[in-house]
Amino acid sequence: MNSLAIFHQPKSNYCYAYDENHVEIKMRAAKGDLNKVFLHYADKYAWDNKDKIQMHKHLSDDLYDYFKVAIKPPNNRLIYCFEIESEEKIFYFNEWGIIEEKNKNMITESLFHYPYVNKADIHRVPEWVKDSIFYQIFPERFFNGDPSINPENIQKWGEKPNRNSFFGGDLRGIIKKIDYLYELGINAIYLTPVFKSTTNHKYNTIDYLEIDPNFGDIDTMKELVNKCHQKGIKVLFDAVFNHSGSEFPMFKDVIEKGRDSIYADWFHVSEFPVTTNPLNYETFAFEPLMPKLNTENEEVIEYLLNVATYWIKECDIDGWRLDVADEVDHKFWRRFRDAVKKEKEDAYIVGEIWHDPYTWLRGDQFDATMNYPITKACTEYFAKNTINTQGFKNLISNTIVKNTRQVNEVMFNLLDSHDTARFLTTCNEHTNKLMMAEGFLLTFTGTTSIYYGTEIGMVGENDPDCRRTMDWNKDNWDLQLFEFYKKIIQIRKENDALKRGSFDWIDDLENVVGYVRQKDEEKIVVLINNSDKAEVVDIKDFNSKCMDLITNEQFDKTDDFVSVELKPYSIRILK
Amino acid sequence: MNSLAIFHQPKSNYCYAYDENHVEIKMRAAKGDLNKVFLHYADKYAWDNKDKIQMHKHLSDDLYDYFKVAIKPPNNRLIYCFEIESEEKIFYFNEWGIIEEKNKNMITESLFHYPYVNKADIHRVPEWVKDSIFYQIFPERFFNGDPSINPENIQKWGEKPNRNSFFGGDLRGIIKKIDYLYELGINAIYLTPVFKSTTNHKYNTIDYLEIDPNFGDIDTMKELVNKCHQKGIKVLFDAVFNHSGSEFPMFKDVIEKGRDSIYADWFHVSEFPVTTNPLNYETFAFEPLMPKLNTENEEVIEYLLNVATYWIKECDIDGWRLDVADEVDHKFWRRFRDAVKKEKEDAYIVGEIWHDPYTWLRGDQFDATMNYPITKACTEYFAKNTINTQGFKNLISNTIVKNTRQVNEVMFNLLDSHDTARFLTTCNEHTNKLMMAEGFLLTFTGTTSIYYGTEIGMVGENDPDCRRTMDWNKDNWDLQLFEFYKKIIQIRKENDALKRGSFDWIDDLENVVGYVRQKDEEKIVVLINNSDKAEVVDIKDFNSKCMDLITNEQFDKTDDFVSVELKPYSIRILK
Repeated sequence: MNSLAIFHQPKSNYCYAYDENHVEIKMRAAKGDLNKVFLHYADKYAWDNKDKIQMHKHLSDDLYDYFKVAIKPPNNRLIYCFEIESEEKIFYFNEWGIIEEKNKNMITESLFHYPYVNKADIHRVPEWVKDSIFYQIFPERFFNGDPSINPENIQKWGEKPNRNSFFGGDLRGIIKKIDYLYELGINAIYLTPVFKSTTNHKYNTIDYLEIDPNFGDIDTMKELVNKCHQKGIKVLFDAVFNHSGSEFPMFKDVIEKGRDSIYADWFHVSEFPVTTNPLNYETFAFEPLMPKLNTENEEVIEYLLNVATYWIKECDIDGWRLDVADEVDHKFWRRFRDAVKKEKEDAYIVGEIWHDPYTWLRGDQFDATMNYPITKACTEYFAKNTINTQGFKNLISNTIVKNTRQVNEVMFNLLDSHDTARFLTTCNEHTNKLMMAEGFLLTFTGTTSIYYGTEIGMVGENDPDCRRTMDWNKDNWDLQLFEFYKKIIQIRKENDALKRGSFDWIDDLENVVGYVRQKDEEKIVVLINNSDKAEVVDIKDFNSKCMDLITNEQFDKTDDFVSVELKPYSIRILK
Repeated sequence: MNSLAIFHQPKSNYCYAYDENHVEIKMRAAKGDLNKVFLHYADKYAWDNKDKIQMHKHLSDDLYDYFKVAIKPPNNRLIYCFEIESEEKIFYFNEWGIIEEKNKNMITESLFHYPYVNKADIHRVPEWVKDSIFYQIFPERFFNGDPSINPENIQKWGEKPNRNSFFGGDLRGIIKKIDYLYELGINAIYLTPVFKSTTNHKYNTIDYLEIDPNFGDIDTMKELVNKCHQKGIKVLFDAVFNHSGSEFPMFKDVIEKGRDSIYADWFHVSEFPVTTNPLNYETFAFEPLMPKLNTENEEVIEYLLNVATYWIKECDIDGWRLDVADEVDHKFWRRFRDAVKKEKEDAYIVGEIWHDPYTWLRGDQFDATMNYPITKACTEYFAKNTINTQGFKNLISNTIVKNTRQVNEVMFNLLDSHDTARFLTTCNEHTNKLMMAEGFLLTFTGTTSIYYGTEIGMVGENDPDCRRTMDWNKDNWDLQLFEFYKKIIQIRKENDALKRGSFDWIDDLENVVGYVRQKDEEKIVVLINNSDKAEVVDIKDFNSKCMDLITNEQFDKTDDFVSVELKPYSIRILK
């Protein structure tokens, strides 16, 4: 047994309350090392009345197995240890480490503690997100619905964008295309920034309380949200709170008045007067256009919290995506969560975090993050073929294990965004690869965000090329892809097992990714063949026949299994 | 190389800001597995300008080596990875795992991130605690200074206590003994609860805003704190916020009026009317006298936060020890910290946590916890002899590694308390063992709390026996022990290396515990011989001679080292 691989941590992603009645407990061990793991647990003050329950091997990655079990703590209080069976020997594992069976009496000296399940600390996530499929819109490039508010010198719709291009997309354009979004089937949109700003992307805010005049005004935004809500579509805004734009009046005041400005402490200026060369104030990256806000200044905090609640109050938006969330202090985000949830209890808070996000997902800050680790796994496996099937499963498993179950259920999964090349381009425009990858996301735990135009086959390299104008000429669309998107979106929406079900890999498949999603009696098996050869898979998970929800093909059970053929580069969603 | 043992986590006890200029980074590996570890690091947006620095093997426990380095992040932003040398092969370690040297180009794909060092998130601890030695007083048993406020039916001072005994100790008694405390040399006291209550221990509060009438009144308390402050002695109160007493008026109102009480939601009552058999309300443990407070109710929160600041405002106390801190929600403790620190910036907040405390010590809740894991290590090694020298070092190392440096510097270390048997009793009254253990604590990182009477040789089994009355008859004192305490307290106070210095084990000693504390030019070596044989140790850490600060013996350097003899069961503090 590799004792050094064994890991557990109370009150972490290894032991947390999923809700008031379930504490989920995980334990890690070296891959293939343990035969069985049991949890011994009791009320903190009543070890003599302890229970014992077997844990199941939940997931594995390249190095470790993860065992898991969910229990109800007696009287909300919990002490516990693990009983481990390895090579026919029994060990115990408590806070002080591994204990041999002969020293079993020592286990009570330092049990693991989850002292009390406080309701206030349970991470509650918005339920509606589990039912949602997001569509990300970069407003300047989606549709020009009101040419009267075009910026000057716009390029012709459809031309290649550069970093400074304007095309005239606006809020009226989105309103005019709500029927399109409804037809596609998505039921939530995430808008990149819409506040007054000098650039096409608007990540350098001038006024957080004003819609950019080239996009429309607050009334148009109210109409947009209202019409979306009528169609059952939620609306997420983009909060750029790490930095403002250099044209933000408070920053201009600092430029003008130096240390005498009443806003001098709103930013991080190392000396006055403010200069860009040398850059003597902190910025996002090294971008002089984007002075970093001092989110430790009480006036700044109050200003930004007011922004956060203002748009909920005024326009009834359903949540915020947080730009460069990892460079803003946790203390600010805690206050942000409190303020936002007080205004709208089920608002969705999604941080832009590209790396291991657990620090922000303990329940006191965000509900979810943009799940770029999943993006990377899909890119390496489907698009680039740099890892094999097992490697893909390892990466996905690792990502699941790093978060709590409630977070995984609302994670913001995506294949691409305004900050990446388009997935289809990374696939060398191999459409089936995009279909497999999107099919994976929409049958995986968590919500999915589709970047505008992906559904019709739009391509593009990294920014600025990934921000081309939406192509509204149906003649240019990949209609097969579009129909596929409509279909899998519908499948996702109609099957609760995909939204709230358990997730388990089918382990004995070699070249095919297979997994089971189950909720109560509803069971769905997903099979993905990311190879250039056809594969036949025998599925034992169904009682009788099953149907491919994409093609409506039906498969009967013969002997002990259902035999299913998979074409090269294809996905089946079997129910 | 045991890849499965390798561990690092950004924004945790493995990577944190010590202050605005230092980020400390640790990496774990299997014991003895790695030859060298280097850190590669850069500004988040400028990997091309990266630096490389060697990490040093900081500590080891029974399974792992811990490597450490402190750096200043360029522009407050940090990305990094590790370069590992094992068996003459080079590996890299980033967020995605171990990478072989031939794939070195992959390291930038998923570097570890400490995106930005936000000042608001840096855990700032009160500086004065590093200069403090605490003395824990159980007021009912320390000294009866005002017989006019004795409880009824008190026992005779000096008799054995039972759970319900009263002896008449009070605040006037403490005031009268301030000179004694000053003579002993301590400069902080921690008082177990002093608010109105029915019991001798007062952990079942009736009124959080009133001093128990058998202890005195608010004016006496003001006088106590004031006179302590005049002598440079800080005062810590005990906050019993997990539960009140059953005589707490709000709980009595609930008993009386049931669900119609305006305080019905202040507690956790599962059904009305309130009954104790069956117990239909939540309590501390299963104690009906102690109904659990609902710290998620805004009125309760405001009531308790007012208590926390009231005593700072009224009596100028210097901090709070938090009873049963692990059963109260983190959300409450965050607000508690904000409220207390706003009232008194350098107030000290110490939680009663008996287990791995890091969850509460991330900077948003407590400054320190009662360091019972250290108590346990000292008990097993010095008092009970159940572990050997290496085992002791492993436990201590493990405890250090689990927390950040600033937390370790103010941890509340103790050998015993009102909740344990007295250490001298656990030692079978082997006074030298107590001396070694207390000598260890006072030369270790963190503050030390001495339980009243330990310094004169008081004994006692677990509660209630550990709560005997302080023996003021000098004829009964172990004067040698008392002088030893005065000496080591003085040594602690006079040597900054013991309070703020680095801590490093001297590795090549077998039967002797040895370590070096160093701050700038000040270097102190501590040697402890916890065996029945004399030992001779050759110390290479001094440039020339050194002196034992306890005995004033002087040792000269001959050849390359200073040779020091240690009697059985003895400690030397060499400078």
